[in-house]
Amino acid sequence: MDSIKNRRTIRKYTQQEVPAALLDNLLEEACRASTMGNMQLYSVVVTRDEEMKRKLAPAHFHQPMLTTAPVVLTFCADFHRFSLWCRQRKAEPGYDNFLSFVNAASDTLLLTQNFCTLAEEAGLGICYLGTTIYNPDPIIEILQLPELVVPVATITVGYPDECPQQPDRLPLRGIVHEETYHDYGPADIDDIYAYKEALPENRQFVEVNHTETLAQIFTDIRYRKADNEAMSEALLKTLKKQGFC
Amino acid sequence: MDSIKNRRTIRKYTQQEVPAALLDNLLEEACRASTMGNMQLYSVVVTRDEEMKRKLAPAHFHQPMLTTAPVVLTFCADFHRFSLWCRQRKAEPGYDNFLSFVNAASDTLLLTQNFCTLAEEAGLGICYLGTTIYNPDPIIEILQLPELVVPVATITVGYPDECPQQPDRLPLRGIVHEETYHDYGPADIDDIYAYKEALPENRQFVEVNHTETLAQIFTDIRYRKADNEAMSEALLKTLKKQGFC
Repeated sequence: MDSIKNRRTIRKYTQQEVPAALLDNLLEEACRASTMGNMQLYSVVVTRDEEMKRKLAPAHFHQPMLTTAPVVLTFCADFHRFSLWCRQRKAEPGYDNFLSFVNAASDTLLLTQNFCTLAEEAGLGICYLGTTIYNPDPIIEILQLPELVVPVATITVGYPDECPQQPDRLPLRGIVHEETYHDYGPADIDDIYAYKEALPENRQFVEVNHTETLAQIFTDIRYRKADNEAMSEALLKTLKKQGFC
Repeated sequence: MDSIKNRRTIRKYTQQEVPAALLDNLLEEACRASTMGNMQLYSVVVTRDEEMKRKLAPAHFHQPMLTTAPVVLTFCADFHRFSLWCRQRKAEPGYDNFLSFVNAASDTLLLTQNFCTLAEEAGLGICYLGTTIYNPDPIIEILQLPELVVPVATITVGYPDECPQQPDRLPLRGIVHEETYHDYGPADIDDIYAYKEALPENRQFVEVNHTETLAQIFTDIRYRKADNEAMSEALLKTLKKQGFC
């Protein structure tokens, strides 16, 4: 499928609006993704209002796509709606636990990816903001998410105003295992990461950041242990506050 | 996109093999999905061996697709490979925490859904087995997954030997919220679930199971509080054992 094969994340969008009817069609089709027991454990909050985008921006570390994209979608794991239905039908829901969060988050991420594929096939560009789970609390407050609802993915959507270079991917032999997991020896690691490390942009990245290796940019600058640990604690607290454990 | 719009889960497959080259192409294209910091925090274990399928079957509650499908794919959240690379490049990885599990699981589920879309577009049928996170421990053992690797989704794959009815989905107004989450009143819940509750197969389901409502089938039979709580505890234990918290 060419739209998947040739895709790239789009961070710059034209001024062209995304029609509400198109967005609805894409979301409706996206709901065809697999869902646990057909419970559809998700909600999607659509942000078009400029003021709302400005409010959400700090939670996403002020990444510019958030305020410049015509549409921002926050995909939320949601066991609230299903639990309301249960209670209204003389059934006692038992979904205030960690497993239920993972089930709902899984449903939500399948929906998210399905939406992205459909949006790109329709000529739109998207950017996936991983920051959503770094700072869920302000997002929960701004979007007024009730108990058993947690944001897991944010997608900015609009018509592309750029065509960036397609990023590299690891060779498939570094990802796929036949029958059992075949652990990687030093030579495998050298082989799998060779192409990535040799890319001029990555060599330059190392130079500019004054690190010895590309890996150090990840461990020492971009995704640091201390930050990950602090955000882990915050995320678990959020899950607790939202009633999921 | 017709292949998404018309999709249905396929649980019965013909004897036709899924060529290895086709599977590789699909997995390679699927890797085009968004991934956090281009780290590709996933691995895929391919099961074709009959004996391996038989070993995996109990972990998936002996669902027949597992042993009758020509190919079973276990999609795993994987921070192990990336951490090996870091250590081999004088960088100290800090990904033995809960946030890193969620990041890796998110990457993995986007890959999973992308693969499913591509497989269906190529004429294959798939079934998503939600049981993977109910029983991760035996899967980890059978597939020999090392620390920082956890299975999050299993997909059975083959050429369709059935064309079941397409399942219902909730109306989009029950899923999408404009600007903020609009909580559901009793009338909204009645409205959103009316179609599902009126379906002849669901009415029959209630009758056969001797429950008063459809919701009770979920809470009292299919997804019970006590089971969810036990599996929550087990899943958290597994994450700890695999080094993620």
